[in-house]
Amino acid sequence: MLQPFRIAVAGLGTVGTGVVKILQTHKEEIAMRAGRPIQIIAVSARDKDKDRGIDFSSYEWVEECREIAMRDDIDAVVEMIGGSEGVAADLVYDSLAAEKHVVTANKALLAHHGYKLACLAEEKNVGLAYEAAVAGGIPIIKAMREGFAANQINKVYGILNGTCNYILTEMRETGRNFEDVLKEAQEKGYAEADPSFDVDGIDAGHKLCLLSALAFGTRPDFDALSITGISHLTSTDIHFAEELGYRIKLLGIAQRHKEGVVQSLEPCLVQKNSQLGTVEGVFNAVYVKGDFVGTSLMVGRGAGEGPTASSVVADLIDLARGSIVPTFSMPVNHLKEPKWLDSGKTVNRYYLRINVMDEPGVIAQIAAILRDFEISIESMIQHGRDPGQPVSVVLTLHEVSAKSMKDACEKIASLKIVNEKPCLMRIESL
Amino acid sequence: MLQPFRIAVAGLGTVGTGVVKILQTHKEEIAMRAGRPIQIIAVSARDKDKDRGIDFSSYEWVEECREIAMRDDIDAVVEMIGGSEGVAADLVYDSLAAEKHVVTANKALLAHHGYKLACLAEEKNVGLAYEAAVAGGIPIIKAMREGFAANQINKVYGILNGTCNYILTEMRETGRNFEDVLKEAQEKGYAEADPSFDVDGIDAGHKLCLLSALAFGTRPDFDALSITGISHLTSTDIHFAEELGYRIKLLGIAQRHKEGVVQSLEPCLVQKNSQLGTVEGVFNAVYVKGDFVGTSLMVGRGAGEGPTASSVVADLIDLARGSIVPTFSMPVNHLKEPKWLDSGKTVNRYYLRINVMDEPGVIAQIAAILRDFEISIESMIQHGRDPGQPVSVVLTLHEVSAKSMKDACEKIASLKIVNEKPCLMRIESL
Repeated sequence: MLQPFRIAVAGLGTVGTGVVKILQTHKEEIAMRAGRPIQIIAVSARDKDKDRGIDFSSYEWVEECREIAMRDDIDAVVEMIGGSEGVAADLVYDSLAAEKHVVTANKALLAHHGYKLACLAEEKNVGLAYEAAVAGGIPIIKAMREGFAANQINKVYGILNGTCNYILTEMRETGRNFEDVLKEAQEKGYAEADPSFDVDGIDAGHKLCLLSALAFGTRPDFDALSITGISHLTSTDIHFAEELGYRIKLLGIAQRHKEGVVQSLEPCLVQKNSQLGTVEGVFNAVYVKGDFVGTSLMVGRGAGEGPTASSVVADLIDLARGSIVPTFSMPVNHLKEPKWLDSGKTVNRYYLRINVMDEPGVIAQIAAILRDFEISIESMIQHGRDPGQPVSVVLTLHEVSAKSMKDACEKIASLKIVNEKPCLMRIESL
Repeated sequence: MLQPFRIAVAGLGTVGTGVVKILQTHKEEIAMRAGRPIQIIAVSARDKDKDRGIDFSSYEWVEECREIAMRDDIDAVVEMIGGSEGVAADLVYDSLAAEKHVVTANKALLAHHGYKLACLAEEKNVGLAYEAAVAGGIPIIKAMREGFAANQINKVYGILNGTCNYILTEMRETGRNFEDVLKEAQEKGYAEADPSFDVDGIDAGHKLCLLSALAFGTRPDFDALSITGISHLTSTDIHFAEELGYRIKLLGIAQRHKEGVVQSLEPCLVQKNSQLGTVEGVFNAVYVKGDFVGTSLMVGRGAGEGPTASSVVADLIDLARGSIVPTFSMPVNHLKEPKWLDSGKTVNRYYLRINVMDEPGVIAQIAAILRDFEISIESMIQHGRDPGQPVSVVLTLHEVSAKSMKDACEKIASLKIVNEKPCLMRIESL
């Protein structure tokens, strides 16, 4: 057996602790699979005295985590600190520069610094592995970089944030509103104290941006991504969607068109009996469409100690085996600048809910605007209310360009009879 | 860029031709991903003159395929001939012995010779890659050997034969019987002229046996697997299953118990709204349960030129990148002899259809036998028929040991009022 593969773990939150736990629990099996022991040399975290439920006493405790990057007795650094800047970024840059492999779950860092880090890793001939950064326990990075490497990938899309999917599932099942369910999710530890990264779609956006780079052979470009979160969704929309045979999912979608790539991250309606519609709670799901492989789907736990740490340790086993794959699947000099297609030109079906005063002529005014934009109505729901009271009018609309739909929606919103911002969502046929 | 990775393709049927097609179509992208060109040096097949729709003229045509193994100018042999013995086996043994990597889609060969071939590959320090052997385009071998390598796998199960799943889907959707649908599948090219490998479950059994070896760190042991196919299923069973809220799927299941491993390959009932229940037509699906990662599901096309060739080329890219993974995930000296648990001891829910003469006392006789075996009835369906005519009685039964269920079923079958062999199937809650 070869020399041990020596690692340091920086950051001992949920996932960092989980990594140590797996390496302790399956020490022998992992050594067999990796062809050599994976040995933890050092660990580092802010609070040394915190009880993390496992024994760290046989590892050296490093106070200043950047020191890890400078040591000669470490082959790979496991960065479990998080955040796109600051300590985590410094540690990863320093470690790669010092010719150490890096394993990380840090999607924010990779979404913002991915290209520069990939260049550095390639220059130093070390691996930059990040299976745990996207979709937790699902080996989607491996599937994209290796499993589907024979294909031109034409579309990658899915449910990339377990917190949002949990909230949407709970809202549907219990009829409660967003704030209530979020509060409970925070109490249960499913959502952060500051939930905006999750519910505003930033976290899922980081992940989509990495999948998109892998799919299309481009540099990750987070800034080009338009993102809509879920905090504006009401239980009214969830129930209308259900009535129409759909469920609302926060979907990240990256698609190749002849004229360029379109990326979007927004809540969409999907058929409730479809495979994506049945992915509920904290589960994630990713679809990949390749020109030879066809459509493939992977579903699994998108977050949590066990699944995420499982992906980190898989990366370590790969590196210990000597397998180094280019960060974004091909050498950096081949990564293109993404060519974005104006998303207004994409054609979709839509769900539109408009809150109006229930008075004569309302539907006529809305229908006239839609007609003027050549938007064809597929179905309409309006349940009875007392005359003079506000009422929801829900429409599903046949395929129309995003630009026309948005313009029509703004015009409808400006009508006097409309008393709050309409809710517009794509219907994805997938 | 490194020297080209030089390959020969032996066997130019659907998949072999597909491999050449992908390597031609995506030549440049594949070279980027692999870090060097993948160059076809030679091809071999029985009929040189057959029109395969692509140009083979720039490759050397080798008449005697075993000669490929002896050549110095080839790094990897792609075996696309098929069959557990004969030419294919000879070529693979010879190629590994001559220190060439082998990529194959041949599950029969691996199920029967897997351990010996793994020993040879390890001794010669070459790769034996077989992503395409299980579940076509789904990167399940990669997931098991690498993606979930940090876990103890406790269960792996799924739909492993697209032909059977297509037949069952068609029977349900059209109400036609097995023979009719099989005949159509043969005409469409979805089923072989000799369909027994597919419909008798042998093909799925080969695949399960490989997944089981990977999951439990054991030598593949095809002979220990008990297999039931789908040819005895009637549209009556499919419709009763539907009425009860289930669909019939040919499932391969390998599960770790404290006392040993249980492997089975048989048609089972799964809930029709479950994720497995919605996998229809030629699609395959594999679930993996690991102790840290939890439950993961992968769905994709299980057969056909594009998906299967996609997996073969992915293996070639891995090998060209220099990644060699132990055949069954760990070195051969660590592979254990599987310890089988007597499947009679497993506890399951069951579906039982009994064809009886519709006369007084029938249900009483059946119920008495079930009571004697302490089997509790969950539900019962019997639709009205003319008195004195045969009628189907369908029962679902609460959890009971396979042994008791089988014994009870035999006793019921021996009743005078029962006029054909009862149909007994597991209900899998998954």
